[in-house]
Amino acid sequence: MKKYMTAAVGGVLLVSALSVQAAEVDDAIEYRQGIFNAFKWNLGPMGAMIKGKMPYDQAQFTLHAQRLETLSHMPLEGFVEGSDSGDTDAKAEIWSDMDTFSAGFDKLQTNAAALVEASNTGDMEQIKPAFGAVAKSCKGCHDNFRKD
Amino acid sequence: MKKYMTAAVGGVLLVSALSVQAAEVDDAIEYRQGIFNAFKWNLGPMGAMIKGKMPYDQAQFTLHAQRLETLSHMPLEGFVEGSDSGDTDAKAEIWSDMDTFSAGFDKLQTNAAALVEASNTGDMEQIKPAFGAVAKSCKGCHDNFRKD
Repeated sequence: MKKYMTAAVGGVLLVSALSVQAAEVDDAIEYRQGIFNAFKWNLGPMGAMIKGKMPYDQAQFTLHAQRLETLSHMPLEGFVEGSDSGDTDAKAEIWSDMDTFSAGFDKLQTNAAALVEASNTGDMEQIKPAFGAVAKSCKGCHDNFRKD
Repeated sequence: MKKYMTAAVGGVLLVSALSVQAAEVDDAIEYRQGIFNAFKWNLGPMGAMIKGKMPYDQAQFTLHAQRLETLSHMPLEGFVEGSDSGDTDAKAEIWSDMDTFSAGFDKLQTNAAALVEASNTGDMEQIKPAFGAVAKSCKGCHDNFRKD
């Protein structure tokens, strides 16, 4: 199980099993849902800028992309054992296929980092597909691991 | 109002008024509460390590301190105008005294950054007071701006 609780932050790879041992399941569910709300908060304005519903602002877009990249490293540790029941839409498949679930976060982190790079160019031709890749990461995980 | 919506990220000072205009009040409340849940998620293990309820692990402690520092830059933008009503414990004083409220986040950010530095030393004599300063920042804001 430990391998799923690793997180790379500031170049340091470490095991966060200690936190998990101390965590109450309800706290874990609230935690990960909170981070997902913050995903949405940042994705919304980026999507609106891409669709032309909000004026494009490079600095603003980049801030949201940076926030998303940072946040993308956080939810996985909230999927502690036993947290498939309660006030959650998480499917049991998360725990029975943690390798795939965890790989989905790896992909999201990679795509979010690429979105930051694209945003730094200010070139919408690069930003749009990079944002699309992030959205695809989100959807892929939702389709497989979230209850409707 | 714009001055309250500024955020320094990656050395870039920018105005995030655009996001705020697009945000629904309920989304803003959910967003900031989600970030505060993530505060709690990270503060808990640090407090437990300091109190000896959990074995001290420097890398683990530092990860939580880094996360907290990152997250400390996020909630303020969720306190959009009109979000003092609804499912929130936010007092109206937040908006009538935004300068003080905003300064509280500046202080928290400074204290959280100092906690990361203290954690990097691995010296509990430095970590304890640094953590105490963070906790004091939290409590100060709660006392003044959060309903009981």
